Amino acid sequence: MSDLPLIVTPGDPAGIGPEITLKAAAAAPGAFVVIGDMRQLEDTAHNLQLDVSLTAWQPGEALRPDSLGVLPMEWQKPPVAGQPDTDNAMGVVNSIRSAVELCKNKQAKGIVTNPIAKSILYKAGFSHPGHTEFLAHLDGKNAKPIMMLANDELRVVPLTIHQSLRSVADDITTDAIIKMGEYLNAALKRDFSIKTPKIAICGLNPHAGEDGHLGTEDIDHIIPAIEYLTNCGVAVSGPHPADTLFTIEARQNYDAALGMYHDQVLIPVKTIDFHGSVNITLNLSFVRTSPDHGTAFDIAGKGIAKADSLIAALRMAEDLASCRDKFDGASKDIRKFNYKDGLV
Amino acid sequence: MSDLPLIVTPGDPAGIGPEITLKAAAAAPGAFVVIGDMRQLEDTAHNLQLDVSLTAWQPGEALRPDSLGVLPMEWQKPPVAGQPDTDNAMGVVNSIRSAVELCKNKQAKGIVTNPIAKSILYKAGFSHPGHTEFLAHLDGKNAKPIMMLANDELRVVPLTIHQSLRSVADDITTDAIIKMGEYLNAALKRDFSIKTPKIAICGLNPHAGEDGHLGTEDIDHIIPAIEYLTNCGVAVSGPHPADTLFTIEARQNYDAALGMYHDQVLIPVKTIDFHGSVNITLNLSFVRTSPDHGTAFDIAGKGIAKADSLIAALRMAEDLASCRDKFDGASKDIRKFNYKDGLV
Repeated sequence: MSDLPLIVTPGDPAGIGPEITLKAAAAAPGAFVVIGDMRQLEDTAHNLQLDVSLTAWQPGEALRPDSLGVLPMEWQKPPVAGQPDTDNAMGVVNSIRSAVELCKNKQAKGIVTNPIAKSILYKAGFSHPGHTEFLAHLDGKNAKPIMMLANDELRVVPLTIHQSLRSVADDITTDAIIKMGEYLNAALKRDFSIKTPKIAICGLNPHAGEDGHLGTEDIDHIIPAIEYLTNCGVAVSGPHPADTLFTIEARQNYDAALGMYHDQVLIPVKTIDFHGSVNITLNLSFVRTSPDHGTAFDIAGKGIAKADSLIAALRMAEDLASCRDKFDGASKDIRKFNYKDGLV
Repeated sequence: MSDLPLIVTPGDPAGIGPEITLKAAAAAPGAFVVIGDMRQLEDTAHNLQLDVSLTAWQPGEALRPDSLGVLPMEWQKPPVAGQPDTDNAMGVVNSIRSAVELCKNKQAKGIVTNPIAKSILYKAGFSHPGHTEFLAHLDGKNAKPIMMLANDELRVVPLTIHQSLRSVADDITTDAIIKMGEYLNAALKRDFSIKTPKIAICGLNPHAGEDGHLGTEDIDHIIPAIEYLTNCGVAVSGPHPADTLFTIEARQNYDAALGMYHDQVLIPVKTIDFHGSVNITLNLSFVRTSPDHGTAFDIAGKGIAKADSLIAALRMAEDLASCRDKFDGASKDIRKFNYKDGLV
């Protein structure tokens, strides 16, 4: 696996995807393959005065160390920076399909996705809630993707994600925490080569509920989940008051933090290192990372987009693929969890 | 005012208060007065081998630059580090009363409070919800204290504080945000000498609700409050997605962030600089700061408690008193807000 390339999807071709991909290639030529329109990429490189050599690549070929490999595709309409076009929506969707196919066929070792514009895809009939859900769908109907945000300082996973704050408390169940704890534990072993992962679990309420004085979910749902996971041999701790869990001292005590909702864990990881933060989808059959920003149509084509997060996503995907490669060589029991549905 | 001393309260004498006070005095002798038991302070200094000179101080006296001024009191029982005693609860309470009296009588320029143990005070009949509420009570029945956490990088205020996450959404009202915005704006002018304070207001929901797809409170309550405050001439912005509001770049755009709940703003401020974070009570007639930690009975008397946060609280109180002094000299209209109860 290790000599297979990483595949970068183009994302929306009117966004900053092409630009940051070329900038990343300029920093590390020969490190990955992008699915893209050779003409558009050449024009973008020319306009932005980026000195990047492009070479058409086909599955099975080795990468040239001095050149960006391009798996060629053509857009329905020539993309215009900053002006997304629904006519190119199917091209965006098909490029994601191609990337997954390459991974499933063992022709690529992982996927790094450039940002898409969901609203544009919806107009063209795309019916998945988002990028990650579409990738999970392509992976197979039982795939349960998990969103992790990570940088060099901190790894976090939110139990609930894109939902109103009002609706969060009802979704904090013992069952959900146990499942997530098991998945996260398995992923930290397989994708990060951590032998006995230490997982810190946040309380839901301020001060983790202060013995029930500030909400009872910490006692009623989180503590039982921690006890169950502990009995299963997972090294969990908590529920921790979230406000003091992300200090530089506290971060030394765990490998990943499991938070109860979006802002509880996305605030610290982005506050600590915004440009170095990478979105990772755990628990798929392939490695997938993405930069933690959107299409940025407002600055596309202007040459000012930062490639830092894409470069961090490429590095992360490289590391994850390498860890997974080693792990899969040693053991095949990644999906054999302790947890059984319905036991709790 | 400027040559008046800051008054440090002892807090619970069995906690780390005496130790960190002596450590702060060793770092900056002559900078403040502590209310305390001369014998206990001498013993503590001796046991911890802290070279601090102590001098009895009475209101109106100048501070000796090489010595810690002590406004003498006696504990009912000799305090034992790590073993709080309800017999000393009234002494704790009375020391807070004395500090407020000194400020009200213009014999001190501000108060820095050492941590208390509410559970001990409750057993002795103390009936206020906490330290801050007691200080507000002593200040007068109309005092509306506001909790700010601040360090050199960030100032934050939570709209709701010590309540369950489940109960937060119902308390996010246009009215509450407007009042808090006005108070915070006034306090930033008076206590931080910021001429036109810029206040960033967080959304409640992830992505600030994403146009109502992830909760409607941002649209229904926060945006109207921002419009009202803007019309009143307050430089507010938002609602901002909270996860990207605390990056080093984003922090350049505002003087303080107003968050909707405890963890939303306490996570970033403590993550950025835990030991330098100071708790400030705004909107009282006197300056009040405190270190952002508790009594730490478990490590009291061992010589290992860090005085960083108390030292930061002393510096902050010094700065606030100096700003307030200048402001009060120039203007007396601090309590003349635009906002009228019932208008909205």
